[in-house]
Amino acid sequence: MAAKYTVAIVRHGESVFTKQNLFCGFAHDADLTEVGIQEAIRAGQLLKENNLEFDIAFTSVLKRAIKTLYYIQEQLDCHWLPVVKSWRLNERHYGALQGLHKSETAEKYGEAQVKLWRRSYDVRPPPLDRNDERWPGKARQYAAMDQGMIPTTESLKDTIHRTLPCWYDQIVPAIKCGKKVLIIAHGNSLRGIIKYLDKVSDDDIVSYEVPTGIPMVYELDEDLQPVKRYYLASDEEVAEAQALIANQGKIIQK
Amino acid sequence: MAAKYTVAIVRHGESVFTKQNLFCGFAHDADLTEVGIQEAIRAGQLLKENNLEFDIAFTSVLKRAIKTLYYIQEQLDCHWLPVVKSWRLNERHYGALQGLHKSETAEKYGEAQVKLWRRSYDVRPPPLDRNDERWPGKARQYAAMDQGMIPTTESLKDTIHRTLPCWYDQIVPAIKCGKKVLIIAHGNSLRGIIKYLDKVSDDDIVSYEVPTGIPMVYELDEDLQPVKRYYLASDEEVAEAQALIANQGKIIQK
Repeated sequence: MAAKYTVAIVRHGESVFTKQNLFCGFAHDADLTEVGIQEAIRAGQLLKENNLEFDIAFTSVLKRAIKTLYYIQEQLDCHWLPVVKSWRLNERHYGALQGLHKSETAEKYGEAQVKLWRRSYDVRPPPLDRNDERWPGKARQYAAMDQGMIPTTESLKDTIHRTLPCWYDQIVPAIKCGKKVLIIAHGNSLRGIIKYLDKVSDDDIVSYEVPTGIPMVYELDEDLQPVKRYYLASDEEVAEAQALIANQGKIIQK
Repeated sequence: MAAKYTVAIVRHGESVFTKQNLFCGFAHDADLTEVGIQEAIRAGQLLKENNLEFDIAFTSVLKRAIKTLYYIQEQLDCHWLPVVKSWRLNERHYGALQGLHKSETAEKYGEAQVKLWRRSYDVRPPPLDRNDERWPGKARQYAAMDQGMIPTTESLKDTIHRTLPCWYDQIVPAIKCGKKVLIIAHGNSLRGIIKYLDKVSDDDIVSYEVPTGIPMVYELDEDLQPVKRYYLASDEEVAEAQALIANQGKIIQK
């Protein structure tokens, strides 16, 4: 089938929490670091150099994704772009691990247990109490939501399941209207979209690393099946960025 | 009646065209200058110091307004805020004056004529030809519009008439849903909203100067009648900012 639609996805760059090796996720609205800003600008430049234009953008309600989009808009000179911000595109909720240092977490729970939480498809970390000050339901961006919908912890499976309604109900209709769609989100919510588009198995999606700041472009046929899929960077650059991410994700950094 | 709703409006700060004393308006997507950025940051600080929070923002599709909103969001730490961008909130379309230097325009058409275009309620400057490269219909942000709706010139009356459907159909329903609304727009589109809210006459609205970067807050009763209306600055500061604007607007700057 011939390619009919184009969708580009970008994972936001380094945040203050990533830099400090803390579990960040859904519950903490960490800002971008200077490195993260540079990654966002580079993503915008790559989209521009490749003559990609968009009609609408989707992002999470977390500022590290929204600001990445903003820097991309600045590069593409498309501040006017309609932007849909959905909590469904937020990063995975790491439950009680939220805000903890990854090394400390390994000491507290054991490295094997933490690896299981991080590298399994459907195992949830311990939940965050709704009275805990780290529980995100108190933040204004979730005030209009049914509070029962705001997670206290998530497995990767949970994250993907709550991400996909945004894909099906908001993004797909935009694509099918002929709009060129840009999605700026997080490692785990993007895994949901990639899993859907590329029909990745539960086991394989766990270890799929979405590189930060390198736009990935899908060309889809009229049934939204991928005809082509490519990063806007060389294979070497992508592999390097993926290795960096995998390394950042290590529980104990040497 | 008691105040039930809150609406804040902010006029964007200095743009590259304002600084160069060129007619800017609808048709040119001028960026903010460094002064304009500082005005936006100051507006955000004033909103924050006065503990104003918002649930939704409305802006034009012009980057000088959108970026002003962005700097305000940065100050208020509300990147997640849903933002509606409407061409109806754009600056007035100055027709064939677009992009011309204000002094040159006075020389070409005579100062009295230019004053009439600038200071009358319902007189339009000569239209911009739709084939003119300055005609905004070629820009991507207007691609999905009925091209007949994209103006070739506007009187202040025209600007107000095309602004008000955004007020009635998008902003008012948000207010009546109990949302705290922030509007970031331009001198003439904001005149439309002020004219409606304060029941300003055609003659008086022409000379009403909306100061840049100083938020104006309306407290409205349940019938959207103003109970209170104030700037987040002293009367002296407002008068000074208004005088500055009136001076910027002079055709020949000494």
